[in-house]
Amino acid sequence: MYHHIKQLMYTVRVDTPDPRFGNMLLEQFGGANGELAAAMQYSIQGINCEDPGLKDLLMDIGTEELSHLEIIGTLARMHLKPTKKSREAAEADPLIAIAGGGGVNLYNSQGSAWTADYLKITGEPDVDLRSNIAAEARAKIVYERLINFCDDAGSKDALQFLMTREITHLKAFMTALDVLSKDKLVIGKIPPTPGIVDQFYNDSTGEGDNGAKDMRGPWNQGKDIEFIEAPAKMEAQVTHSQILQEINRAAGR
Amino acid sequence: MYHHIKQLMYTVRVDTPDPRFGNMLLEQFGGANGELAAAMQYSIQGINCEDPGLKDLLMDIGTEELSHLEIIGTLARMHLKPTKKSREAAEADPLIAIAGGGGVNLYNSQGSAWTADYLKITGEPDVDLRSNIAAEARAKIVYERLINFCDDAGSKDALQFLMTREITHLKAFMTALDVLSKDKLVIGKIPPTPGIVDQFYNDSTGEGDNGAKDMRGPWNQGKDIEFIEAPAKMEAQVTHSQILQEINRAAGR
Amino acid sequence: MYHHIKQLMYTVRVDTPDPRFGNMLLEQFGGANGELAAAMQYSIQGINCEDPGLKDLLMDIGTEELSHLEIIGTLARMHLKPTKKSREAAEADPLIAIAGGGGVNLYNSQGSAWTADYLKITGEPDVDLRSNIAAEARAKIVYERLINFCDDAGSKDALQFLMTREITHLKAFMTALDVLSKDKLVIGKIPPTPGIVDQFYNDSTGEGDNGAKDMRGPWNQGKDIEFIEAPAKMEAQVTHSQILQEINRAAGR
Amino acid sequence: MYHHIKQLMYTVRVDTPDPRFGNMLLEQFGGANGELAAAMQYSIQGINCEDPGLKDLLMDIGTEELSHLEIIGTLARMHLKPTKKSREAAEADPLIAIAGGGGVNLYNSQGSAWTADYLKITGEPDVDLRSNIAAEARAKIVYERLINFCDDAGSKDALQFLMTREITHLKAFMTALDVLSKDKLVIGKIPPTPGIVDQFYNDSTGEGDNGAKDMRGPWNQGKDIEFIEAPAKMEAQVTHSQILQEINRAAGR
Amino acid sequence: MYHHIKQLMYTVRVDTPDPRFGNMLLEQFGGANGELAAAMQYSIQGINCEDPGLKDLLMDIGTEELSHLEIIGTLARMHLKPTKKSREAAEADPLIAIAGGGGVNLYNSQGSAWTADYLKITGEPDVDLRSNIAAEARAKIVYERLINFCDDAGSKDALQFLMTREITHLKAFMTALDVLSKDKLVIGKIPPTPGIVDQFYNDSTGEGDNGAKDMRGPWNQGKDIEFIEAPAKMEAQVTHSQILQEINRAAGR
Amino acid sequence: MYHHIKQLMYTVRVDTPDPRFGNMLLEQFGGANGELAAAMQYSIQGINCEDPGLKDLLMDIGTEELSHLEIIGTLARMHLKPTKKSREAAEADPLIAIAGGGGVNLYNSQGSAWTADYLKITGEPDVDLRSNIAAEARAKIVYERLINFCDDAGSKDALQFLMTREITHLKAFMTALDVLSKDKLVIGKIPPTPGIVDQFYNDSTGEGDNGAKDMRGPWNQGKDIEFIEAPAKMEAQVTHSQILQEINRAAGR
Repeated sequence: MYHHIKQLMYTVRVDTPDPRFGNMLLEQFGGANGELAAAMQYSIQGINCEDPGLKDLLMDIGTEELSHLEIIGTLARMHLKPTKKSREAAEADPLIAIAGGGGVNLYNSQGSAWTADYLKITGEPDVDLRSNIAAEARAKIVYERLINFCDDAGSKDALQFLMTREITHLKAFMTALDVLSKDKLVIGKIPPTPGIVDQFYNDSTGEGDNGAKDMRGPWNQGKDIEFIEAPAKMEAQVTHSQILQEINRAAGR
Repeated sequence: MYHHIKQLMYTVRVDTPDPRFGNMLLEQFGGANGELAAAMQYSIQGINCEDPGLKDLLMDIGTEELSHLEIIGTLARMHLKPTKKSREAAEADPLIAIAGGGGVNLYNSQGSAWTADYLKITGEPDVDLRSNIAAEARAKIVYERLINFCDDAGSKDALQFLMTREITHLKAFMTALDVLSKDKLVIGKIPPTPGIVDQFYNDSTGEGDNGAKDMRGPWNQGKDIEFIEAPAKMEAQVTHSQILQEINRAAGR
Repeated sequence: MYHHIKQLMYTVRVDTPDPRFGNMLLEQFGGANGELAAAMQYSIQGINCEDPGLKDLLMDIGTEELSHLEIIGTLARMHLKPTKKSREAAEADPLIAIAGGGGVNLYNSQGSAWTADYLKITGEPDVDLRSNIAAEARAKIVYERLINFCDDAGSKDALQFLMTREITHLKAFMTALDVLSKDKLVIGKIPPTPGIVDQFYNDSTGEGDNGAKDMRGPWNQGKDIEFIEAPAKMEAQVTHSQILQEINRAAGR
Repeated sequence: MYHHIKQLMYTVRVDTPDPRFGNMLLEQFGGANGELAAAMQYSIQGINCEDPGLKDLLMDIGTEELSHLEIIGTLARMHLKPTKKSREAAEADPLIAIAGGGGVNLYNSQGSAWTADYLKITGEPDVDLRSNIAAEARAKIVYERLINFCDDAGSKDALQFLMTREITHLKAFMTALDVLSKDKLVIGKIPPTPGIVDQFYNDSTGEGDNGAKDMRGPWNQGKDIEFIEAPAKMEAQVTHSQILQEINRAAGR
Repeated sequence: MYHHIKQLMYTVRVDTPDPRFGNMLLEQFGGANGELAAAMQYSIQGINCEDPGLKDLLMDIGTEELSHLEIIGTLARMHLKPTKKSREAAEADPLIAIAGGGGVNLYNSQGSAWTADYLKITGEPDVDLRSNIAAEARAKIVYERLINFCDDAGSKDALQFLMTREITHLKAFMTALDVLSKDKLVIGKIPPTPGIVDQFYNDSTGEGDNGAKDMRGPWNQGKDIEFIEAPAKMEAQVTHSQILQEINRAAGR
Repeated sequence: MYHHIKQLMYTVRVDTPDPRFGNMLLEQFGGANGELAAAMQYSIQGINCEDPGLKDLLMDIGTEELSHLEIIGTLARMHLKPTKKSREAAEADPLIAIAGGGGVNLYNSQGSAWTADYLKITGEPDVDLRSNIAAEARAKIVYERLINFCDDAGSKDALQFLMTREITHLKAFMTALDVLSKDKLVIGKIPPTPGIVDQFYNDSTGEGDNGAKDMRGPWNQGKDIEFIEAPAKMEAQVTHSQILQEINRAAGR
């Protein structure tokens, strides 16, 4: 009927509050790839899930992410507290300062409110696991960037711990996906249309220094891949071969 | 460092799934006055709070609301499950059916994604308690409306339980506010400007069958209240008294 | 059929424009607890309300808040005007500078657009009054914070006036709630379940320096309150008493 | 310092409440082209405006739109009221029924909350007038569609009145734009680059039954317009002319 | 079935990356009046359009705007790249720095995510053209402001090019509207109510230094316009004339 | 400098318009996993990408998705067109009917506007590929559900084609990820903390019929995994072993 939560067994230490860094930390509190997003994505997938093993896995990790929300929130709170009294600090995050009195809320680093639009929940177990693998990878890289911009030893410790756990979860979700789906190219029940599924369309051709030049790699060449020029290009190329053909024919060669 | 969650000790029963009712239940899952809003509002206030007693209260109730999120989510899930396979059921909530495969997500009854804009968190303890009292009152009336539209006995039991707990929380927050603030008209530290604070402006005057007629009540009359007609009206009335005055004067009365 | 608005009878004065402060002022223009939110919350409650006295009260205050929107907007406009021409000023609020040409719009201090998700409107008069009491308390504390970060005398005068009026409204809404509902624990018509309504669950137990320690206060102890340890804790405690019991028994004591 | 509002002098009549139509009416209450959007767009432009004539015009029409908000809200309220008690009616708008108790709120016809993202405010008077002309045109067509879906005589009267006023405003804004800007192709102060400004790029070429066939009209032909084929097409065409040229050359013709 | 896109034939040059300017550029990438908004507004109007000429025009310009999205995105990317490694640069746009690793995303200059709420699409060709004329005017003025805040020659060239194209589109849409609708005051099919359509209501009367003084111009005077004082004012004026009348009568004059 | 788009070479056929199905189709037009989300996610990753091969791949698929947006939009448009004239059809999607005149716009199946919050863009190539793999899997399953709810042969053909292409893209992104990252557990540059990375926390323990029972699988057992009971549970277990120990000790056993 209810939960028992052992809160914050991890004691967060901050030596020098840095409001602008506190503001950055909000990315992992109320941001798109943050702890609430992770906690809600996995827990709600868990509520929807009918496979007991996967349900337990989703609930275990969802619950852990919820405890991380408290850690990151406490850390951000410590860095942002000066915004309550210092006008200069307040300019680092006026929303936290004026509306929140220096306390945190579910915003990202530029004051956008957390939204469930961040969540990826489809009710299809293997698809949800792919979304979770991607979510963990994103959370990991975001923690790494925060560590790189951080000068405070206590904060770095906490962030290193939280970053490490994302790799643990990444591995667990990858293992679960391996268990669930032998063929990673099969999604759902309706098979793709043969032939069309093997065509790679070269739809874009960049020019100028910043454009995407046409490149070949294992993703668009190989024995099962039919490489197809996009229509406009085909037209030009067909015309070009026709040129040669016609020229040769006309020239009597 | 992490939480231990005893999930779902309350066993939810649904005899007859009713997708359109399941859709209504989403108001308390991903809606503005729902369980996630309550859980987040209180828990984050708790993270920001420095008074140990109030912090513990906010965390206790925040944690309980989180467990309610799981109950209401499971209940909604059971009512919405037919949307996965039945086209008719799917029309009751196409977003749940098509994007969610019949599983719940943090939407309200018309598919709007949950947003932290629902939360009221100011970092001022007595102000936050007022926001919480209002939040509990809203959650209570929403559960009552759901009960009134519900035909399923198992669902009604769960809703009655959840509704009851909102009254428990209402009382706890009211008691905490009583402890905190003797004078309920004092907010923060800067006092209001004397005189101006006692003026009631009659700014609006309705006409037509649906307009707001000018009314008097203890909120705009009494010994400490100066009732002031809004400018345009004053102007008209002054003019009117001038009429009589001038007429009388002119008439030599 | 239409309104007659005497605009801006309050002459706003700004001696030294301060774009970063102008940006903070937007919290009360287009922010979550600002004047539009207040004006809309009360006016729309008024449209829905069928009690003539309460309808008039809601419309009076809703109308007054609308006039405050104009005052705060004009004030913010004056502080933000330099963003139109100065690159340095523009960095204080690039959205106002680039998209708005230095003019205000319904954003908060970090550029989030005003949304009706800020509003609390339930159509239940006493519940709406609780939401309004909370809203006035929030608006008051936000004005206080703005005053504390403000150096400009003219701006401070206007903010003090606006802040004062929130206390006036707070009082009026509290009085109206007193008139409406004798027993503040009764919401709607369906009574809570006896017994369950008196239980306080100790759901959360903090550890570490920043955790919420278990505390007792009038909100979780007293003659009508049954204090209940959350399941996991109960389990541990039962086990603990069993230890002693068993030890003593085993020891032949 | 404050406003005096004569509310609702227009008496709204509804003979037969129609909840699904009431839900549609919300488009003009809390929708993207509705009365709040109009009221806020013009009033805030008015706050920002420094030309006294235009400022007065913007405030006059902004104020009138605010009064329309009350009319359309009252009308929608009457049509939606049955959602409070009837489960069938409630299914027409569960958000209004469950969260609002049958009362209106600032949502559109599918429950999306009103957002200031609907507003177009640039602080450039002639640009704002163009946005207002477009806004009035949109509001007019939306009212026309509502009238076409309406069976209730009283509702139709109110909608016809509101629709008529949009044409009045359209005309006023068009007149003001004529006064302001002689050359409608001049916006701001930096002139466009000569030559490039006169080129029309034929960027898109549709095929299939639903594609956009290449068409010519006064917008892409005429004495000041240089019509330019998009690069890919040019390439093909150049190649094609080269074909003929080469063929002819090769053939010795 | 698919598109062939010649990307980025315009080579973007940035001599000195300026992260705060890069952040401002996001207004035209993911902002309300930016290139994605333009591209989507016109292309989707084109999908809905049944007039072949107008459909082709909408698709041509929609496609061109999509290519501008790539130019402005590449330009912003170059200016924002230092946010990946430099903490100081990161403070210019923490969302881009932390969540995006220095890469762009569809945000505006204050981190609000792009939303389709920016779009104005009604399915009524002449109304849509008015929305497009306004959109082009807004885009033009925003580019002008960016140019005014820009120090980098390469960036200025690109912005001047993009700004110029908006004037080209403005002209094309104005021409198309001229072709479509002879009488610009006719929208849709239902005519406005005669008489009421010619009334101008003087609804707002400002006082104080910043209020809107009552002004007359061609928009509220002329042979077809009936100027009407708003009710409150009328009342006062009628009363005033009655004063004089009554005074005179009483005085026996 | 600009794009050349061959639009809609795929001719869409609809035999019987079905407005409620058309509304469902909007999930793939303006919904969270739809074609615009895919097109923008890949194209913007492409703009940010500095690896030429990956940049080209992202642009090729991003461009193809853009063409799919046009196909699905045209298909939805055909199914929704009756909403323009029929009141009954309009009730299937009042927003499309009233605001859109029967034309499509970037909404999902319940009228929520498309938002860039749907996008997952981190600027870290291998992380972005994981997000794309997940996005393709979601899009595939959504198309499958639409096919399952569809009765119209022409619509089914188009949906089968679009669904097939998602598998093609899934494969291309998986291949590209294989090329990029040998060890799928390595994200970014900072390694996780040894020891902690191998711990699996059993944080959640369900009870009741719908709870998550503790389960073991390869994700939480194996030679590299240290399985750890969550604190509350550990505490209880430790206490339990202490009981036995103490009992035995006390009993002199």
